[in-house]
Amino acid sequence: MHHQFYLNTLLLLFSVSTALAQKPADWVNPFIGTSNFGATHPGPQYPHGLASVAPFNTAFSAGGLNPTEKDEAWNSRGYVHENKFLTGFSHANLSGVGCPELGTPLLMPTAGARSFDPQVYGSVFSAEDAEAGYYSCHLDKHNIKVEASSTLRTGLSRYTFPGGEGHILLNLGLALSNESGGMVSIVDAQEVEGFRMVGTFCYNPEDVRPIYFVARISKAAEEFGPYKKMPAYRNVEADWVAYNNTWKPYPYFQQEVAGDDVGAYFSFQTVPGEVIEVKLGISFVSIANARQNLNAEQPGFDFERVRTQNYERWNELLGRAEVEGTDYQKELFYTALYHSLVHPSIFQDVNGEYPLMGQHGAGRITTGNRYTVYSLWDTYRNVHPLLSLLYPEIQEDMVRSMTSMSEESGWLPKWELLGMETGVMVGDPATPVIADTYLRGLRNFNVEAAYQAARRAATAPETENPLRPGIDDYQALGYVPLDGEGQWDGTVSTALEYYLSDWALSRLAAALGKEADAHLFAERARGYLNYLDPETGFLRPKYRDGTFYPDFNPLEGKHFEPVTGFVEGTAWQYRFYTPHDVPFLIEQLGGADAFSQALQACFREGLYDVANEPDITYPYLFNYVEGEEWRSQEKVAEIIARHYSNQPGGIPGNDDTGTLSTWLAFSMMGFYPLCPADMDYALVTPAFESVRLHLNPDYYPGGTMDIQALRTSENSQFIQQMLLNGQPHNRFFITHQQLTAGGVLKIDLGDTPSKK
Amino acid sequence: MHHQFYLNTLLLLFSVSTALAQKPADWVNPFIGTSNFGATHPGPQYPHGLASVAPFNTAFSAGGLNPTEKDEAWNSRGYVHENKFLTGFSHANLSGVGCPELGTPLLMPTAGARSFDPQVYGSVFSAEDAEAGYYSCHLDKHNIKVEASSTLRTGLSRYTFPGGEGHILLNLGLALSNESGGMVSIVDAQEVEGFRMVGTFCYNPEDVRPIYFVARISKAAEEFGPYKKMPAYRNVEADWVAYNNTWKPYPYFQQEVAGDDVGAYFSFQTVPGEVIEVKLGISFVSIANARQNLNAEQPGFDFERVRTQNYERWNELLGRAEVEGTDYQKELFYTALYHSLVHPSIFQDVNGEYPLMGQHGAGRITTGNRYTVYSLWDTYRNVHPLLSLLYPEIQEDMVRSMTSMSEESGWLPKWELLGMETGVMVGDPATPVIADTYLRGLRNFNVEAAYQAARRAATAPETENPLRPGIDDYQALGYVPLDGEGQWDGTVSTALEYYLSDWALSRLAAALGKEADAHLFAERARGYLNYLDPETGFLRPKYRDGTFYPDFNPLEGKHFEPVTGFVEGTAWQYRFYTPHDVPFLIEQLGGADAFSQALQACFREGLYDVANEPDITYPYLFNYVEGEEWRSQEKVAEIIARHYSNQPGGIPGNDDTGTLSTWLAFSMMGFYPLCPADMDYALVTPAFESVRLHLNPDYYPGGTMDIQALRTSENSQFIQQMLLNGQPHNRFFITHQQLTAGGVLKIDLGDTPSKK
Repeated sequence: MHHQFYLNTLLLLFSVSTALAQKPADWVNPFIGTSNFGATHPGPQYPHGLASVAPFNTAFSAGGLNPTEKDEAWNSRGYVHENKFLTGFSHANLSGVGCPELGTPLLMPTAGARSFDPQVYGSVFSAEDAEAGYYSCHLDKHNIKVEASSTLRTGLSRYTFPGGEGHILLNLGLALSNESGGMVSIVDAQEVEGFRMVGTFCYNPEDVRPIYFVARISKAAEEFGPYKKMPAYRNVEADWVAYNNTWKPYPYFQQEVAGDDVGAYFSFQTVPGEVIEVKLGISFVSIANARQNLNAEQPGFDFERVRTQNYERWNELLGRAEVEGTDYQKELFYTALYHSLVHPSIFQDVNGEYPLMGQHGAGRITTGNRYTVYSLWDTYRNVHPLLSLLYPEIQEDMVRSMTSMSEESGWLPKWELLGMETGVMVGDPATPVIADTYLRGLRNFNVEAAYQAARRAATAPETENPLRPGIDDYQALGYVPLDGEGQWDGTVSTALEYYLSDWALSRLAAALGKEADAHLFAERARGYLNYLDPETGFLRPKYRDGTFYPDFNPLEGKHFEPVTGFVEGTAWQYRFYTPHDVPFLIEQLGGADAFSQALQACFREGLYDVANEPDITYPYLFNYVEGEEWRSQEKVAEIIARHYSNQPGGIPGNDDTGTLSTWLAFSMMGFYPLCPADMDYALVTPAFESVRLHLNPDYYPGGTMDIQALRTSENSQFIQQMLLNGQPHNRFFITHQQLTAGGVLKIDLGDTPSKK
Repeated sequence: MHHQFYLNTLLLLFSVSTALAQKPADWVNPFIGTSNFGATHPGPQYPHGLASVAPFNTAFSAGGLNPTEKDEAWNSRGYVHENKFLTGFSHANLSGVGCPELGTPLLMPTAGARSFDPQVYGSVFSAEDAEAGYYSCHLDKHNIKVEASSTLRTGLSRYTFPGGEGHILLNLGLALSNESGGMVSIVDAQEVEGFRMVGTFCYNPEDVRPIYFVARISKAAEEFGPYKKMPAYRNVEADWVAYNNTWKPYPYFQQEVAGDDVGAYFSFQTVPGEVIEVKLGISFVSIANARQNLNAEQPGFDFERVRTQNYERWNELLGRAEVEGTDYQKELFYTALYHSLVHPSIFQDVNGEYPLMGQHGAGRITTGNRYTVYSLWDTYRNVHPLLSLLYPEIQEDMVRSMTSMSEESGWLPKWELLGMETGVMVGDPATPVIADTYLRGLRNFNVEAAYQAARRAATAPETENPLRPGIDDYQALGYVPLDGEGQWDGTVSTALEYYLSDWALSRLAAALGKEADAHLFAERARGYLNYLDPETGFLRPKYRDGTFYPDFNPLEGKHFEPVTGFVEGTAWQYRFYTPHDVPFLIEQLGGADAFSQALQACFREGLYDVANEPDITYPYLFNYVEGEEWRSQEKVAEIIARHYSNQPGGIPGNDDTGTLSTWLAFSMMGFYPLCPADMDYALVTPAFESVRLHLNPDYYPGGTMDIQALRTSENSQFIQQMLLNGQPHNRFFITHQQLTAGGVLKIDLGDTPSKK
């Protein structure tokens, strides 16, 4: 299916789908999430690919052509759908993150007089078309058609020139990353190699990485060379130098050129309609590896083969969930699943080398994949459970990568990026992933090492513990007191994450027969009661001496505004955030009715944020109240309808490396994992008539699980009764073991709630 | 001899020499030429060394501490003696050039709190001491003593720290070069490698080179890393980033970091008086070669060995001219000879590799040396003749390098710099060097290839000829008409150089039996008569139609001011510039008396420029007038006394890669080569009692030539009579063959001129 957006506003409202679309990948609409801060991009990307080819249109406001400019704010988007002025195609890109990073190296074809100034060679673009593994657009200024596809570690671009002078520019000056600096070296008339610095992700500027690349062009250039922005000269020097504060070409120069703003150009005389292709391989280990990646994954130039391989790999993965529903539903669902399969990304080169975590030099793996880009505060909630269910072989690789990181650096990752621990967000989010994965039956990793690493994070004193600030108070008091606030933000949020991690660790300990640990961490996991303020019924920031924070206001902290005790959320949004212990919390809050009333108020009064993680499970929490489960069914359907769509703004906020998309994918299938290491999925109404899970038989011998939703009318959205393999299923939860045993879950739906 | 300058002004007037000084190298005063635009530096440099270690004090005016700032003008000096604020020690340096280049990589030791800001870590320095192969000073701010020595391709620095925190900074941001950008990569706690861009020499910015380096420290650093100047961030990004428009360290990072302003730091805890050494090897081929150079030339850390080897090599070369005179005279002479032996510099790495001229990649030589830094418009006049006389084995290597350049690039060099043809200055100056060298009997090079290359430059049409702009007109009209001025400057100057080159080529052709060519080029060499204006008696710019430039003023063009028809000189300073044909020119100018009168007027009226090449031989031209030779004797002695000294300002202007120093060296010995390919040296009064030339017997079997000046009183400066090997020598010239045959030239001197 081609998704085409024209400037015509009517057409913008609806994507055009062809009647021939059949395979899962055909339903992917890569434009979803490219507006409304979704932070996805429409460029081709291989599932969990290291490379991608994304149009880059957030540099320069361009006289208003680009409403969003990358440096006007802490902007994490190299592509924004509303922006109209494009300055290149970047080959390493993050999807759904909150800080600017990567967006490099940039290739750009131009026609006519050569310029090295991106504000001059940049172009309005039109006729965008994107599908899984393919992107194309037209560069209006140059009358060039651009098409792109990608493999795991390489991009491939096909430029159709209008004839006459044509140029291919590689720009290492511009990037989304806030790091700068790079090196280029021309190899010959068709090849250039180099690297570009990346880093400074999320105001954690102490670490940096070079991204290495080799780019090869299908045709030998008539003129080529590196170029570099020269400094501003003064006085008489300024009178004499030919290149003052502008870009200087070095024709035919074939040694290294380094600087803050360097690039390379390849110039051609073209005939009208002439096609020139460029392939670009990347590596985070070395230029030699980038070349090896390029040679291995693209031995020649074969656009259709690259595109087809990419598309087929998407089909293979997306097809594990086979859904029946409307075209619109399939478009939403498969695009959501697509966005769930972008990060973490495969990190190692074709020869197995990858940058060691927290060390120098490269390691080498012999089997499987080494992954990077772990936004774990987001993804532990649903992305990894989804992977464990549908892609267990991938999830095991990801956990193996995490345990390897702890072996290399001493610590499990928190927000790992390219072998760097960025330390972004709070809590200790690797532990729930590891426990959850193990408990779902994925155990082909060094479990004992992983357990010990998780235990170390949970117990090491503050002076030695990079993962758990406040751990000393936490261990001594059972909570993180407000007295430490200022050294880091969000003491309550921090501790709530620790409780969850401790609980997950206790479940893992129990499964491993470590009874003492299981008991210890289970005890600790209920420490949230320390924060429970009987007066307000909220989890409330507290001092070391046991007194509560006096100026408490549970409405403060919306829209990422700073608030005492919490990060990225209000006290409301953290109010029910004890996912491992919801029934007990309900008791503490005054019982089922009081809880349901409070939860309803939260939605009614706009205190719920659909686009952020702390309250992401709130719509499902009615499942914990007998007789109120219909409210979850209603609420989930309402959120899907109101906040998700097939438009560029169709993800309600930052996709958080697929977490919002995964929420949608699970929710449309009718089940949702409420808490890592808890094997229950909450059940709600599937959006589809049927959902067939093709389970990996190496992990789940049952093989196939069908979920059938039997509607009596179009409005049948409430569960009336359920049959699991012919037997009545009366819980509004289903265990992972039940779901993966294979068989059929039949759900009878009606137009009215089935209240108690 | 140690040359020490203190702030005490009295001491500044006289250098202190010890009574024990005996060897030639002991007389070298590296401070001579470091003021008054001499553009030499006082750092240790091996004869014709690629590397040197020069104090760098022209960055920043530093609140007036540095009267000369490198970017306030087109400043070619990384060190100026008056400047007092030092920001490092650079390891590749040019000596006596007119444009800024190299002055990188910079090392700097600091003590106390670490800073990456050169305006903060820079220091006032004192207690300077320099001799051949050694430099030291005290960094007042840091209380660090710095000592330095060097080998051919490496520098060695010894820092004595005051105790406490100590740092060694490598800064690739600052440099004298107007190019920018570099890369650093930490190898381990003691080693860093990388490269830095150089180029843009003399407003010829189209070419660039990386200078590669490896630096190794004698002690492992406790903390180390690269650092980089971050860009200026705006808006909310500026609020968050920790390093905004300032230098950011990357502790322990060991991959490449590239940018416009990058560096590396190594930090230590030191005890008072602790010595840490750094050695740094360079290469223009690769980092691997820089490392090989470093390992080969400095296998360990042995300051005394490096210093002694450097000093002894200077002794070996300087000792080829053994002079007897006053300490002051020896200081001037041996320092001049020292400055004559800096450029061209040995270019190839220890493995023989060097960057090809005008091509990409590296060549490899198997014997001898490959040279670079050919400022041929300067050096053809006297530096190469000096080398042919005293160092013929070196000069042959230099000519072999020139012919190799023509094989690699198609053309002989004009102003070659690091494998780049900078195209600076006018004329075709390689041809006189080649012809002169051959005619002096140095013939172990590919003579036919060299001849053909020279002939190609003299005959190829303008469209194909990068060396001789105006060649079409020159061949058709016999001169370069003013009509072309504006495309390049100085049509008369240009043509005068062509006449000289053509004459030299005709002499070479004759020696090679190429009679037709000999005739052709000899004819062309007299084309200067086209410019001879009977009305003014000057060589005057002329149009294509044969009319002279009407607004002619022979006084215009002093002090490098632009003037129609000439470069770097007035019509006065070019008036007698037909060195290959002075007797005929004298006839044309009205005969001997008129000529002598005009030449005397030139001196009397201040129309002679002692510091520039076109009129550099004027003081000797009285030798062409029978009976007036005493005027040359007087004038040369007067110029030495008035314009040269043992002070920092003791070279009267830019040393022009040793050309002014070579003028002094020849002049003090009492003979001077007036014209390349002309085997006559003009004879004047030697400054010394005796000069013994130790000639290379492989070239000059005579072995030793003695020049003895017999004075009757202190004022005996006029030649009375001369005996060559006991026979009266009545010419005021001596041929190269006579001088190199060995023997004794006795010169009787008296207090009054021996007029005719």
